[in-house]
Amino acid sequence: MRYFGCAYYPEYWGLERIDEDARLMREAGINLVRIGEFAWCRMEPEEGHFTLDWLHRSVEALARHGIDVMMCTPTAAPPGWLTGKYPDTLLVRADGTRASHGGRRHYCPTSSTYRGHVERVVERLTREMSQHSNVVAWQIDNELGHEAGPCHCESCQERFQAWLRERYGSLEELNRCWGTGFWGMDYSAWEQIRLASEGWLAPSRLLDSRRFWSDMWLEFAQQQAAIIRRNHPGARVTTNGMGPIYNAIDYYQLFGGLDVASDDLYFDIGTMDADVAAMNVFRSLKPGQGFWITETGAGALDHGRPPKAEQFRAWAWSSYAHGAEAYMIFRWRTCLSGQEQELQGILEHSGNPGHRYRAVQKCFLEMRRICEQLGELPLPQAPVAIVQDYDVLWTYESSVVGRDVDYPGQIYRLHRELYDRHVVADIIPPERDFSAYRLVILPSLVIVDPDLAARLSAFVEAGGTVLATGQLGLRDANGNYIPAPGPQHLAGLFGVVIQGGMYLHSHVEPDEALWIPAPETGRTPVALTGVLGSQMVGGRTAVWAADLAANGGTSICKFTDGTYAGQPAIVHKATGKGHTLYAGAIGMTDELHSALVGYALSLAAVQPGPETRRHVEVVTRGDVTFVINHTAQSTIVKLGREGKALLGSFRAGAAELPPYGVCIIR
Amino acid sequence: MRYFGCAYYPEYWGLERIDEDARLMREAGINLVRIGEFAWCRMEPEEGHFTLDWLHRSVEALARHGIDVMMCTPTAAPPGWLTGKYPDTLLVRADGTRASHGGRRHYCPTSSTYRGHVERVVERLTREMSQHSNVVAWQIDNELGHEAGPCHCESCQERFQAWLRERYGSLEELNRCWGTGFWGMDYSAWEQIRLASEGWLAPSRLLDSRRFWSDMWLEFAQQQAAIIRRNHPGARVTTNGMGPIYNAIDYYQLFGGLDVASDDLYFDIGTMDADVAAMNVFRSLKPGQGFWITETGAGALDHGRPPKAEQFRAWAWSSYAHGAEAYMIFRWRTCLSGQEQELQGILEHSGNPGHRYRAVQKCFLEMRRICEQLGELPLPQAPVAIVQDYDVLWTYESSVVGRDVDYPGQIYRLHRELYDRHVVADIIPPERDFSAYRLVILPSLVIVDPDLAARLSAFVEAGGTVLATGQLGLRDANGNYIPAPGPQHLAGLFGVVIQGGMYLHSHVEPDEALWIPAPETGRTPVALTGVLGSQMVGGRTAVWAADLAANGGTSICKFTDGTYAGQPAIVHKATGKGHTLYAGAIGMTDELHSALVGYALSLAAVQPGPETRRHVEVVTRGDVTFVINHTAQSTIVKLGREGKALLGSFRAGAAELPPYGVCIIR
Amino acid sequence: MRYFGCAYYPEYWGLERIDEDARLMREAGINLVRIGEFAWCRMEPEEGHFTLDWLHRSVEALARHGIDVMMCTPTAAPPGWLTGKYPDTLLVRADGTRASHGGRRHYCPTSSTYRGHVERVVERLTREMSQHSNVVAWQIDNELGHEAGPCHCESCQERFQAWLRERYGSLEELNRCWGTGFWGMDYSAWEQIRLASEGWLAPSRLLDSRRFWSDMWLEFAQQQAAIIRRNHPGARVTTNGMGPIYNAIDYYQLFGGLDVASDDLYFDIGTMDADVAAMNVFRSLKPGQGFWITETGAGALDHGRPPKAEQFRAWAWSSYAHGAEAYMIFRWRTCLSGQEQELQGILEHSGNPGHRYRAVQKCFLEMRRICEQLGELPLPQAPVAIVQDYDVLWTYESSVVGRDVDYPGQIYRLHRELYDRHVVADIIPPERDFSAYRLVILPSLVIVDPDLAARLSAFVEAGGTVLATGQLGLRDANGNYIPAPGPQHLAGLFGVVIQGGMYLHSHVEPDEALWIPAPETGRTPVALTGVLGSQMVGGRTAVWAADLAANGGTSICKFTDGTYAGQPAIVHKATGKGHTLYAGAIGMTDELHSALVGYALSLAAVQPGPETRRHVEVVTRGDVTFVINHTAQSTIVKLGREGKALLGSFRAGAAELPPYGVCIIR
Repeated sequence: MRYFGCAYYPEYWGLERIDEDARLMREAGINLVRIGEFAWCRMEPEEGHFTLDWLHRSVEALARHGIDVMMCTPTAAPPGWLTGKYPDTLLVRADGTRASHGGRRHYCPTSSTYRGHVERVVERLTREMSQHSNVVAWQIDNELGHEAGPCHCESCQERFQAWLRERYGSLEELNRCWGTGFWGMDYSAWEQIRLASEGWLAPSRLLDSRRFWSDMWLEFAQQQAAIIRRNHPGARVTTNGMGPIYNAIDYYQLFGGLDVASDDLYFDIGTMDADVAAMNVFRSLKPGQGFWITETGAGALDHGRPPKAEQFRAWAWSSYAHGAEAYMIFRWRTCLSGQEQELQGILEHSGNPGHRYRAVQKCFLEMRRICEQLGELPLPQAPVAIVQDYDVLWTYESSVVGRDVDYPGQIYRLHRELYDRHVVADIIPPERDFSAYRLVILPSLVIVDPDLAARLSAFVEAGGTVLATGQLGLRDANGNYIPAPGPQHLAGLFGVVIQGGMYLHSHVEPDEALWIPAPETGRTPVALTGVLGSQMVGGRTAVWAADLAANGGTSICKFTDGTYAGQPAIVHKATGKGHTLYAGAIGMTDELHSALVGYALSLAAVQPGPETRRHVEVVTRGDVTFVINHTAQSTIVKLGREGKALLGSFRAGAAELPPYGVCIIR
Repeated sequence: MRYFGCAYYPEYWGLERIDEDARLMREAGINLVRIGEFAWCRMEPEEGHFTLDWLHRSVEALARHGIDVMMCTPTAAPPGWLTGKYPDTLLVRADGTRASHGGRRHYCPTSSTYRGHVERVVERLTREMSQHSNVVAWQIDNELGHEAGPCHCESCQERFQAWLRERYGSLEELNRCWGTGFWGMDYSAWEQIRLASEGWLAPSRLLDSRRFWSDMWLEFAQQQAAIIRRNHPGARVTTNGMGPIYNAIDYYQLFGGLDVASDDLYFDIGTMDADVAAMNVFRSLKPGQGFWITETGAGALDHGRPPKAEQFRAWAWSSYAHGAEAYMIFRWRTCLSGQEQELQGILEHSGNPGHRYRAVQKCFLEMRRICEQLGELPLPQAPVAIVQDYDVLWTYESSVVGRDVDYPGQIYRLHRELYDRHVVADIIPPERDFSAYRLVILPSLVIVDPDLAARLSAFVEAGGTVLATGQLGLRDANGNYIPAPGPQHLAGLFGVVIQGGMYLHSHVEPDEALWIPAPETGRTPVALTGVLGSQMVGGRTAVWAADLAANGGTSICKFTDGTYAGQPAIVHKATGKGHTLYAGAIGMTDELHSALVGYALSLAAVQPGPETRRHVEVVTRGDVTFVINHTAQSTIVKLGREGKALLGSFRAGAAELPPYGVCIIR
Repeated sequence: MRYFGCAYYPEYWGLERIDEDARLMREAGINLVRIGEFAWCRMEPEEGHFTLDWLHRSVEALARHGIDVMMCTPTAAPPGWLTGKYPDTLLVRADGTRASHGGRRHYCPTSSTYRGHVERVVERLTREMSQHSNVVAWQIDNELGHEAGPCHCESCQERFQAWLRERYGSLEELNRCWGTGFWGMDYSAWEQIRLASEGWLAPSRLLDSRRFWSDMWLEFAQQQAAIIRRNHPGARVTTNGMGPIYNAIDYYQLFGGLDVASDDLYFDIGTMDADVAAMNVFRSLKPGQGFWITETGAGALDHGRPPKAEQFRAWAWSSYAHGAEAYMIFRWRTCLSGQEQELQGILEHSGNPGHRYRAVQKCFLEMRRICEQLGELPLPQAPVAIVQDYDVLWTYESSVVGRDVDYPGQIYRLHRELYDRHVVADIIPPERDFSAYRLVILPSLVIVDPDLAARLSAFVEAGGTVLATGQLGLRDANGNYIPAPGPQHLAGLFGVVIQGGMYLHSHVEPDEALWIPAPETGRTPVALTGVLGSQMVGGRTAVWAADLAANGGTSICKFTDGTYAGQPAIVHKATGKGHTLYAGAIGMTDELHSALVGYALSLAAVQPGPETRRHVEVVTRGDVTFVINHTAQSTIVKLGREGKALLGSFRAGAAELPPYGVCIIR
């Protein structure tokens, strides 16, 4: 771990106790501080009139204590004078109302007026702050995306129409690709096309609206990145993302154009396996490179229970094990006012160090000591990749089946199987090279292009294994169903034909009704049984079942009731040195789902880690094994390796962990 | 069954495989295809420029395969050029925002601009398409009503003000009829009166708003019907309704002015008894005439589980038993794009026939064969009528008690008692002649006019039985309470005085509170006991109890606790050759409710059908008995008749039915 | 009880049967009638044209039957001609849409246009109606407040900006007090500041918005009060409030400026202890003076079950016991139309007397008889005061913790402990003199000023006891956290230091997540144990725990698990002749919470009343004891006093009460 950090707000607290703060930071092991992401109104209190003295003095005070700085561009919070004078910089909601001053992220990213102001402030800030040698990194804006909703202003509408014209060339082509023939929706002028609101209408329009909004954010970030790089060539440029899978911006594209992938990862927002999924996502955004955690909590997020000191430490070590290079607490001191006055910083409201300061200090000093002993470690190596595609995500979000299919949920569920087995997974876009992996998993990859199909084929020929589940190759690039059986381009590789399928919400029996809200269990699962390798398996699937036929592949599991009784449910095919598995089911029962992933791993010759209780992690980086107990019970993990504990207790090949304990073995 | 059909979208699919489609249709037994209900933008891609060639060729291709056509007017989906150029054709929501292109039903039906465009397209279409001899019917628009909400545009406001002026003559009269004296709401100019939004305010205004919107739809439909009849005199004119009871348009008026009553009846939207209620409603819309099912599903509606093939067949036979003359699948092929891409057509997305095609084909060919054997059958004869009044429906929808009283729910519950006993019921408006019935049921007929009272009286004198339940004759034609005890005009016939009543939501005990949400069972039911005929009965009522006195009638059931303890709950009176029963209770327990209906049937000498498990139907048309098992269990029904099975197994007077089985005996 | 009354609407019913109505009223014991609160359109049907003849005749008819009148100003319902001609009088919702005619309370109270019309109608009305000697009181408007939402019109925005300018003097000071430094929200022009909508953004702005709206209502009421007093000096001026604790207007200020505190208290809106809390609040609004109940129900409120006759009587007697001087039924006759057509008046819709008339008559005649025997009684004396502060209420309502902390809920829960023990409590603002009390309770009094601290200190020195619970002295007057440990100004008196605290919503364990909705019990309570006096106690707290240290006080209860294990939870300190107790916990388990209140009462030497079942009240006024059974079970209460029953059965020191029974002993 290179950086131990926190966010700091000298524009809020003033400079009176900055030296004391910096000393307390240093004593807590902090060596990187983030500054400025909302401070525009105090950097430029009037248009063109900059007051950066406080900022220079803050950075210098931190330098005196050996602390580096991540400067932020303040564009997430335009000043009141700006939005007051230039209301076209404010975003417009779907209902036509305009956002107003008094929050954050209320600007329109396509507004050329806003872009001009952004240019000026970022230009000035980068020229000035690049003079400080302890400014080592830049964060663009703050949590880019749709916190206040996507913008529907006239500027965005015009940009959208231009974007569509660029994409489709002609209205004829757009009408064709959007399938406007149904319900008579043909567009006969570009001006007729408006950005879609949320809702079930017009899935193709909604899909392209999402793509457009993502592209606008990319453009917005790139404008700033270009200025920073021009004025401060040595600094690392990033922005703070959210996740595991963030739906408003294609992060593979966004972070592909920046130097570091950074995540704001509050461990109590998701379950622990979702947190690990987030780390696997962000490590995968920039292959071969560690990621940064730009925000995480030391106490209560919002107004829930804060973690215990030992939990905080377990989270920090977990992040290191998964490849984090920076671990930055949000934030130094709990704010007295505003929206986040309950979000606990390291210090109390009073400015006093308390329980949390001591927990952070103990953790950071221990980590700095141990990390020095560990030296540079290779990143954890993932034998498995799960493919996540933004076009697929947005397609599902744009149609009424999305909530059932729960595309991210399918990814998280598959990931959890790997997490439970201590198998590291990358989460990658379909364009990524597969050759480093043993197993590639395609959860409901409903859009498949010929290039991907060819690369998957080559991967299997060369000995790789591909597991596909759910809806595979049934839609085109516009999210429309293909007018042919599926899986498009992959029928040969998987040896299957998908004629269609059925959802399994139940409302067809005589005392049921579509408009009587179904209970949580309002499904009519379909049974399936078969043999995976040498293991007889059975179970049910509850969300969707494929109308499947084997065509070159071998049916190893069949549906045993319902309309598809007797038809294949899971098909295996060996090709070249490798294997494919297709499971035509979403919502499989736990045991069956687990057996399927286990079988895929065995076909791919991927060895699971030692058996542990759930939420006890075993992660390896080079010759170092991290064992981390996220549970409130003590536990013993037999590792099947020799070694010496750098941290914790390791005896006779077994790590002994107290509640939330950590053991590091080399 | 005269017509076996489906909806077809050549404007969407093109004409390349229309001959193959028509052949597959014919082979599936299809002889009627619905075309064009959303195709305006492809009929008239520019204002005044018509391109109907594809339509002519489609109709001709179908003719070549012996298939008739139901042409639709395309007014449910105005083209983008139209709403783009004439935004006053778009509806305005209650919040003042205007609907936009990209869905359907987003037009304002009162807009004179829109009416002009409608005139042009319907005129042209009817002139052209009436030339084809296989065009046998017309559908006006598609599912007329408030899918996008009722319109509040200035045109509608002005029409509403004119409508009120016509209705009330003067503001004085309107203020009097609306009871504006409370809360000081007097109107002193017509312009002050705006259409009501949903909500609890101003019940009288909301009631008249509903009446107005219904009238506007009637006018809109009549405009088109007149053009069609002028240009295509031989064709049957209809529109596709929804139901059982649709609340936005008075269907008795709407279909009274058309040639056929048609329902879009997806059997999985409601429970099976509600589906039968729908068929009873639509058969009752045009007395003595069968109805059409213009849309029904062959597979999944939306994204739930599709029916099994045998279920689909049971539904189809049930519709025939209840008097359907057309059974039209929505839709030929599953669309690839748009809002309804998951709504399964007969063919797969791929265009291939699959499970559903085979199910439809098997069912339709069987029905065509059997129906030919059956010949022309008389409609099922209903000995019982349930009165359903739109003014009552709208009155309840316009006041805060509506959700408790659940007027349609009372009708459905009474209907279910008859359905369970295999007694066919008509569902009729209060104006309908009662003489053909043995029993007339009035569920919470809270508005009663003198003419109705006189006709009921004559009906009873002549030997009929009337059962009234719930709130009877307590309000005037404006939905206001009458300033006198009830039941207005009916006190003599029923021999009762209704002083008032009480709702039974509980929140008066010291640990209860109105604003603490009540649990589902948050009621304080009132007990009642008595003797119905020779049967001692007891039970409770949970929603409402009448403050009732007998006054010429005989109290046969009394309340036994609460404020009304000792007062009558059910009163019987014999008049002339007939009987009346009034039950002053809503929400009776099941057994009591059933006993009450049973007693009314016995007074009316209506014989129930054979005993069966629930959702096993026994329906008679002339000398033919249909026994249909809608359950997943096999069953045996003793019919008490002789005969021969045209379908299924009938031995020794008993029909033996597998799950979803059908037996037809003559 | 001086007044037995009801609301009456001659403008709605006309004058035809006013003599019969007045006779029936008199026979029911009614001696005060409220008239006119919505009748503007019938007082002034055209601008400047008044028609008050009907009103004069109504008041005269009532006078003939010896009935007094409470006249109302009709400003809650502006006429249609007024809002039609002057749309700027209509309120504007947060989304920018303007309210419309057809309901009530849809006006903007800051509109100078509206204020002008109000001036005219109130001036005219008071001049005319003050001539009648039986007009004894005036009600201003009706239920002042935000029924239609707070107004956001431009007039309100300008008034808000002026109000802020007055409050803060400069934008610099406003920015400092609002803490705008976080998220860069500085205001650089007053025009940039808009009234806040509901939501979590900008807590300081929301707090000041609430203060502003309250001030506008005060101003609105004061305008009318001044006119009434000028034109009708002898009459008592009031307005009808809501409660227990109404959040939109500072009632201590509002009723401080009027002659009588009046509550619209429908006993079935809250639980019985909440009803008693309401009466304790309204008696405390004007110290030493009884309160009026201006509206209460005789039957169903909305459409729930009405009370039994005996329940109605128990409520009426309870109100008298707690100090009510008027008890006015809403309303004489059930309206036939409009919003409240199901809200049952004393008469039926028909105008006939029925069950409710008889219940009211029996109750009122009994009360008049007994009250005459009782003569003038002193008010019940409260040995305990609970402090309720509008700034604290609004602070919690303006930040995201409000729903957890549930400030009114804390007050009601403490009040319920006293109610259960038959200890009368006043509910008072922090400015009120404490000297008459033995015990003062401060539930989460998170804002404390030096004056209050000094007065509390003097109170304790002189022998008083103060119990503080929850969050104490942690915020400044702007609702921001203080940059120091708490409790501000009170650390010495309580002998504690509050370093901070933690909320106890659980979402930090590895299978939990912040965004997975927690079950109702989704908390991780913290255990605490200790000794209160001589009683060992233990329990848990579930909402919030203080990070507490004793500093001069004695820890009598400690947290025993979690981060604060071993730290004090409850601290006692003796000072002068008195005591303080601070419990750093919100959401204590019932037994512990009860023991804490019991211990505070014992320190304060406050004697609880006799033991009874819950919801059996024992209340004392002078030498008279009221025992009232609000439950459906009969009960016996040993009073430990001698005396004679004026009502009910009292033998050998024990009152014997049937269900809903009342016993009055002198």
